[in-house]
Amino acid sequence: MSEPLDFQTIIMNLQRFWAEQGCLIWQPYYTQVGAGTYNPATFLRVLGPEPWKVAYVEPSVRPDDGRYGENPNRLQQHYQFQVILKPDPGNPQEIYLQSLQALGIDPDQHDIRFVEDNWESPALGAWGLGWEVWLDGQEITQFTYFQQAGGIVLDPVSVEITYGLERIAMALQKVRNFRDIRWSPERTYGDVNLQGEQEHSKYYFEIADVERARQMMSLFEAEALNALEHGLVLPAHDYVLKCSHTFNILDTRGAVGVTERAAMFARMRDLSAKVARAYLEQRERLGYPMLTGKSQPSSADIAAAPSAAPRPLSRPASFLLEIGTEELPAGDLEDALSQLQQRVPQLLEELRLTHGKVHVLGTPRRLTVIVEDLADRQTDRETVVKGPPAQRAFDQNGNPTPAAIGFARSRGLDVSQLQVAEMDGGQYAIARVFEAGKPAVEVLAPALPPLIDSLSFTKSMRWNQSGVSFSRPIRWLLALLDDQVIPFQYAGLTSGNQTRGLRFRQPETTEITGVSAYLEFLASQGILLDPQERRASIRRQAEQLIAECGGDPAHLDENLLDEVTGLVEAPAALRGSFDEAHLQLPAEVLISVMKKYQRYFPVYKTDGSLLPYFIVIRNGDERFKEVVVDGNEQVIRARFADAAFFIQEDLKQPLEAFLPRLHTLTFQVKLGSMLDKTQRIERLVEQLISTVGLKDEQAAAARRAAHLCKADLVTNMVIEMTSLQGLMGRYYALHSGESPAVAQAIFESYLPRYAGDDYPQSPAGLLVGMADRLDTLAGLFAAGLAPSGTKDPFAQRRAALGLVQNLIHWNLDFDLRAGLQAAAKGLPIPASPESLQTCLEFIIGRLQSYLLEEGYRYDVIAAVLAEQGHNPAAAFRAVQQLQQWVQREDWNRILPAYARCVRITRDQQETFSIEPDALVEDAEKALLSALLQAETTPRRSGSVEDFFNVFLPMIPVINHFFDEVLVMSEDAVQRANRLGMLQRIAGLARGVADFSRLEGF
Amino acid sequence: MSEPLDFQTIIMNLQRFWAEQGCLIWQPYYTQVGAGTYNPATFLRVLGPEPWKVAYVEPSVRPDDGRYGENPNRLQQHYQFQVILKPDPGNPQEIYLQSLQALGIDPDQHDIRFVEDNWESPALGAWGLGWEVWLDGQEITQFTYFQQAGGIVLDPVSVEITYGLERIAMALQKVRNFRDIRWSPERTYGDVNLQGEQEHSKYYFEIADVERARQMMSLFEAEALNALEHGLVLPAHDYVLKCSHTFNILDTRGAVGVTERAAMFARMRDLSAKVARAYLEQRERLGYPMLTGKSQPSSADIAAAPSAAPRPLSRPASFLLEIGTEELPAGDLEDALSQLQQRVPQLLEELRLTHGKVHVLGTPRRLTVIVEDLADRQTDRETVVKGPPAQRAFDQNGNPTPAAIGFARSRGLDVSQLQVAEMDGGQYAIARVFEAGKPAVEVLAPALPPLIDSLSFTKSMRWNQSGVSFSRPIRWLLALLDDQVIPFQYAGLTSGNQTRGLRFRQPETTEITGVSAYLEFLASQGILLDPQERRASIRRQAEQLIAECGGDPAHLDENLLDEVTGLVEAPAALRGSFDEAHLQLPAEVLISVMKKYQRYFPVYKTDGSLLPYFIVIRNGDERFKEVVVDGNEQVIRARFADAAFFIQEDLKQPLEAFLPRLHTLTFQVKLGSMLDKTQRIERLVEQLISTVGLKDEQAAAARRAAHLCKADLVTNMVIEMTSLQGLMGRYYALHSGESPAVAQAIFESYLPRYAGDDYPQSPAGLLVGMADRLDTLAGLFAAGLAPSGTKDPFAQRRAALGLVQNLIHWNLDFDLRAGLQAAAKGLPIPASPESLQTCLEFIIGRLQSYLLEEGYRYDVIAAVLAEQGHNPAAAFRAVQQLQQWVQREDWNRILPAYARCVRITRDQQETFSIEPDALVEDAEKALLSALLQAETTPRRSGSVEDFFNVFLPMIPVINHFFDEVLVMSEDAVQRANRLGMLQRIAGLARGVADFSRLEGF
Repeated sequence: MSEPLDFQTIIMNLQRFWAEQGCLIWQPYYTQVGAGTYNPATFLRVLGPEPWKVAYVEPSVRPDDGRYGENPNRLQQHYQFQVILKPDPGNPQEIYLQSLQALGIDPDQHDIRFVEDNWESPALGAWGLGWEVWLDGQEITQFTYFQQAGGIVLDPVSVEITYGLERIAMALQKVRNFRDIRWSPERTYGDVNLQGEQEHSKYYFEIADVERARQMMSLFEAEALNALEHGLVLPAHDYVLKCSHTFNILDTRGAVGVTERAAMFARMRDLSAKVARAYLEQRERLGYPMLTGKSQPSSADIAAAPSAAPRPLSRPASFLLEIGTEELPAGDLEDALSQLQQRVPQLLEELRLTHGKVHVLGTPRRLTVIVEDLADRQTDRETVVKGPPAQRAFDQNGNPTPAAIGFARSRGLDVSQLQVAEMDGGQYAIARVFEAGKPAVEVLAPALPPLIDSLSFTKSMRWNQSGVSFSRPIRWLLALLDDQVIPFQYAGLTSGNQTRGLRFRQPETTEITGVSAYLEFLASQGILLDPQERRASIRRQAEQLIAECGGDPAHLDENLLDEVTGLVEAPAALRGSFDEAHLQLPAEVLISVMKKYQRYFPVYKTDGSLLPYFIVIRNGDERFKEVVVDGNEQVIRARFADAAFFIQEDLKQPLEAFLPRLHTLTFQVKLGSMLDKTQRIERLVEQLISTVGLKDEQAAAARRAAHLCKADLVTNMVIEMTSLQGLMGRYYALHSGESPAVAQAIFESYLPRYAGDDYPQSPAGLLVGMADRLDTLAGLFAAGLAPSGTKDPFAQRRAALGLVQNLIHWNLDFDLRAGLQAAAKGLPIPASPESLQTCLEFIIGRLQSYLLEEGYRYDVIAAVLAEQGHNPAAAFRAVQQLQQWVQREDWNRILPAYARCVRITRDQQETFSIEPDALVEDAEKALLSALLQAETTPRRSGSVEDFFNVFLPMIPVINHFFDEVLVMSEDAVQRANRLGMLQRIAGLARGVADFSRLEGF
Repeated sequence: MSEPLDFQTIIMNLQRFWAEQGCLIWQPYYTQVGAGTYNPATFLRVLGPEPWKVAYVEPSVRPDDGRYGENPNRLQQHYQFQVILKPDPGNPQEIYLQSLQALGIDPDQHDIRFVEDNWESPALGAWGLGWEVWLDGQEITQFTYFQQAGGIVLDPVSVEITYGLERIAMALQKVRNFRDIRWSPERTYGDVNLQGEQEHSKYYFEIADVERARQMMSLFEAEALNALEHGLVLPAHDYVLKCSHTFNILDTRGAVGVTERAAMFARMRDLSAKVARAYLEQRERLGYPMLTGKSQPSSADIAAAPSAAPRPLSRPASFLLEIGTEELPAGDLEDALSQLQQRVPQLLEELRLTHGKVHVLGTPRRLTVIVEDLADRQTDRETVVKGPPAQRAFDQNGNPTPAAIGFARSRGLDVSQLQVAEMDGGQYAIARVFEAGKPAVEVLAPALPPLIDSLSFTKSMRWNQSGVSFSRPIRWLLALLDDQVIPFQYAGLTSGNQTRGLRFRQPETTEITGVSAYLEFLASQGILLDPQERRASIRRQAEQLIAECGGDPAHLDENLLDEVTGLVEAPAALRGSFDEAHLQLPAEVLISVMKKYQRYFPVYKTDGSLLPYFIVIRNGDERFKEVVVDGNEQVIRARFADAAFFIQEDLKQPLEAFLPRLHTLTFQVKLGSMLDKTQRIERLVEQLISTVGLKDEQAAAARRAAHLCKADLVTNMVIEMTSLQGLMGRYYALHSGESPAVAQAIFESYLPRYAGDDYPQSPAGLLVGMADRLDTLAGLFAAGLAPSGTKDPFAQRRAALGLVQNLIHWNLDFDLRAGLQAAAKGLPIPASPESLQTCLEFIIGRLQSYLLEEGYRYDVIAAVLAEQGHNPAAAFRAVQQLQQWVQREDWNRILPAYARCVRITRDQQETFSIEPDALVEDAEKALLSALLQAETTPRRSGSVEDFFNVFLPMIPVINHFFDEVLVMSEDAVQRANRLGMLQRIAGLARGVADFSRLEGF
């Protein structure tokens, strides 16, 4: 094996490689940028219709990634190699993989994966879809189909390939620390850049003067606008970049609050958009000079001649459709499969094609439909078409009139074939039109493009000039009926009889003669087409590896299993290990890192603690397993080192010391900083202590936890992984000498964080969480920020749901109305009664959803919530009870009795009083007696059980009453008496449920 | 011939080439820099002892080079390829030339020249010596031995090679405009950078907000200091660079006055120096980690074993010393040759080596000494050494004492060999020491290094670790006596018998067996070793080419001829032409451009106007002449285009419109702006008009010219080529509709600009120039800024000399005292009488120098200036006359007569009055009569002639008086009378000359 390339040779080889691919080799930009995307050779050139192919190095400066040179992988400046291909050449992934070979990486000897990555730059008003490319678990490249820049939709789309050069060099050279990368034969990366890492880290984190940086930012912004006013695009862009870098410095100094951040982003986005528009206008004015040069034809333009006319089959056959794609995200794969599952049978039905079993299968690179025994042609069909009325169609002699002749002709019949029949209550000339079934191939061909087109995704993208949007680019279409191609065109492709196997396996494409050949081919490559089979295989392999190292095979994350199933075609589980020393880090951190960043399965002991192993699922098989495992181990080691660095930094001061910095973290502009919020939480906790009735010790813990509950938000570890909020708070609290109760309450104030999460175990944790959520909800509604549609930036749905779930879990009666009122009093802005009402209804809405998910009947829930929604625990109890009652066999006796009382009184505006002396009939007297009995029987507030227990005895009385008495008597006094009693019976359910909402009422 | 390389391939090839030479390949810096030198990979890494080899591209931004994309060659951003070799590898020029081959340039097919270039960056506190490398007249590279950076002396010295990539690409691709450079196979340079040129030019020249830029600069400076305070070198350096770029923007916007510029430079230099020191301290603290790596041995370390002991010769032989150098500047070559001319004979004398003719010859690459018939050994020598006094050396018996014995032994003699001799007026023991001459080779070997070492240059440099300084690096030493090497070591080299021929001729080195072989070898290469011969050859060739195209061969610039003679070894003259259209530009501009930038001989017609040709003297011969001529034509075309651009810009407004911008151009901080100065000149001209007596018309022209005389200083053309000041003023004045008299006066106010220049022809030009110079001189002396030593930053010597020369030329009597007084009144600061007196003496000093150079006797000048220095025209007349008188045969009769009168009265403090009635002797009565006669004869003020005409008749009377009369009579009245008369005779010369200063007085 030859010497691995040094850093500078990697760059030079990439330059040569991409130059040979027709790219212009460009230079790094002359102002600090966070990524090669900011270089005008990308940001501007991707705009507009002109073709553009470019490649360049970009030293990318990201102040907050600085680690003082201490972290083996994380640098405030790293080197990107950026490639733009515009338009899509049709096979950018394949070209990219060839480029790795130019670096001495044989893709066949590694686990190379395309892992979903949706890229967005708010400051640039830009986004795109694509992947991280992983080399043995290490992200070495970002691969993006650039969809929008400067707020402008890109047409054509550009392919953006961004290599992380340090990572590639470390992988190639097998070094563990950036310092050790050989840059040249004589020098290391550390020789040339370590000092810079140390100094710039210190500068960005500690020394940069915040006030001066703010002033610089203003000046840069003003100059950007100045340049724009004079139509100077590039100078303006330069200043936008300087703004952006200065913003990053401010951010790294911790000087930017949430709202300020939003405002600054908005300003930068606005500037970027102006720059982009100005550039586009300029290019248009210039007549798009680069359009004149001959651009490479994109695959979309290469429409192969349609193959020869299909040969009709004469027997049922297997149908095979494979939509070959670049790597689909796991979620999109699942979505697409379920849509196909539903639509394919519908389609076949519409096409009048009888068929056997329909199989919808798929991997990240293929969506496959297999239909067994598909009819070789459509079933025939006879349609009756109504013609003119019989009287007008035939004269008195029964001879056809011109109307009839015309009608027959229009249907392709001889007039003699017309019949007369009764239709729509009259006599009409009718034509019986016989439609012979067409060959299946013939009807499928036009039907398949709309089928594919009908698939929809949460986020979809364009890639070539065909205008088609899909989750990721479609690169081939295999469509066979038996061994015969169903010819169609879609997304710039022509269907054929070719499929592709695993990447890097030869041959790249294979001709397929039918379903069984197809399945055999995939199997020969180790591809498991069936997601269920894949999932099972992964589970089996993982469990075995876990067991082998003494772990608990039963402890396997099912969500992760689902996700991983969607990430590989041919799963092979491998076990890696890490240094036991890392086990000293909080387990949640390790688990988060393994799962979130790397999709590794952590290995637990049976007691739930971690073992220093992980399971990685690669795509392919076990060949070169050592290389792959080693790569993955290196990645996780660096990740853990990063976390260790953060925690070590954070532990330099007690948790409480972070509090003042919350001042710089805006919660919401009208509602102040996180420090303000913390103070409100503290006050609210104080008030709720009595409401909820905490013991002194618990109250003390609650007060302290309220004080500290948000402090971890400004710690390095939480800034890095927000999902660890609360967890790190607990950890840091314990390490700061806080009591375990306080630490636990800090953590528990976030519970439950997601469906299925734990509930707070301590009253203090419960209380702090309630106060936090009430403040959030009351405040945001008061500020006019109710969630709408899919927008819920402050996660109010989760806050409301958590509040509700906790109250239910703790069975704690709590009047949300009072809680919101109390919260409202602490706000810095007035909360109108309407806003609080809307907020309450929003929370009740969450409660409703929760109850529905819990399986309660919709009407039951509605009935209870109408009366008890403000008290979730009570409502929950009531729903449980009512659900029981409505399932009783005598329910159809109970409800009507109550319903009769309600219905007859429902529309009365007046509340009638009862004059017992004016009662006439026995039946009504009995009713009053029963009513008074019911009204005076003690009941638990809101209890359905108690309601029915008092109501049940009334039923015969009520029924008798209605049988004997005319409620709507002509005598006003009698009528009033009777209505009044019924009103009071109806009113018995007040505060319990509105039974009128029940089915059958 | 293969396709010439495109731009990106040039870069990639250079990267590969230098990587193969062991350089680290680095990236462009992430902030705007004016040159690759600013990149810390140069600016910092050249500091300190650690070895460093690096190569990188640097997009270099120089706002004031922006030409809106209109100029074919000049760009606000160009691409440099920067190489640093530290330490000197010993053959950097040769490596560099190989790199050209890697670009497809065969150096043998072009004229490649190393043209002196002294590089300095005031903002970086950096300087170095080296060359521009010219490819067919086009500067394609700067090659510098970096001597100092950040104010720190570099040890070791770094070799800095900076390629101008656009120029190389244009030469390779034979395109005429940067836009047409092929960057990649598909794209041109214009495709990717034209828009940037247009926009950034506009931004820098017109749009950048001055106030904001100033604020940015302050903020950057403050942050640099902030970073430095915390020991952060790289962040500080970044901000220094940002300062520097922002300064450049301000400068391009015309917002920086001269003094402000100086202050800003001082601040930046100070910052750079701090950064450099901080870096050095840091590296020292780190223990110079890169020293541990094995560095390439430099040539200095490779000391060849001394050759075998020399074989003594037995007959006179030829001596040959050749100091082989990298290209010496023309001036240094001349200096070195004249020093050798003087020192070699001295040295041989000291060495007691008799010899025949000494020839000192040389070219830019070699200094050669040839001595004919050098004795094969020293002449013998006998020395007499004084010992102890005879009395102490020998006892009374004549036997030697221990003192004598010791003395004899110390001289290597037997005591019996001592003699006694009279010395210094006493008897001493003496030793006659005989010294036999040593072989010539033996005494020359140790004498040659000091000889070379004794050569001194205006600016000299170090290059390797030997510590030797020289004009440029010495690369070989050839030292032969007959055919035998004189062995010595110097500057890390060992002398030998090898020489080198012309660059690119094979073989590179040749062994030489003696002087005639040496001369034959050089002749075979076309090298003309004798500067006189070279000069004659150039003249002959140039004259022929000039004549061939109809030019005037007699019109050849002698200074340029001298310079060019010092630039080539083997001169070959070639004629190029340029577009006749350029002849519309002012001839002075064309001539300046051709001579100053390109060392071309302009071709004049016999009427003095230009022809569209130029003569270039290349090094080598006529092979590939078309290529060389074409290259040179391309260069001059671009240069002229540049000038045309400037002039065209300048002509967009009348000359007067530039006046307000003079406000931003500081003359001197205490004396205000150039606009202030202009206003003072106007006032002074007004006053002088009457003094000098101008006609109305002339006066009007003078007033207007005074108003406009400095306006051209802020025009683009003069900012670009300061030497065109006045010339452009005239040109622009004429184009602005000013009268020819005014235009001419503007120009003439600068005359004479240098020795031998024209004088003003118009009184208006004379007057404005006088006013300007008087203001300059009075003002700067008042400000305490008299020139001192070699420092004369405001060129006061030239101002004073010009003033004096003009007055003499115009024979205009003018009292400088009154002139300075008048000038002083207009100044914004008070001018003390002492400062004006010092100023006057300074001017008289220049007058004295001028007269001396004109060949007048020192004493004559001194005598006249003592009385008439304040009136240069009168003084000049007086000197001319006095010079005549002192050469008269009867002068030794005239002067003594006058002298007697002066001498006897000189020391009298009192002025005696004469009482005629008290006169006693006839002789004294006659004297009084003659005196009165003389005193009443009308004389022209200051006229020496008139003085002597009245004095001559007095001579016999005076002589008679002294013969007959005792002046110092005891009678006080008589004595007073006699002294009084003599005092009045002496006083006759007052205002004419102080004859006491004459020789023989």
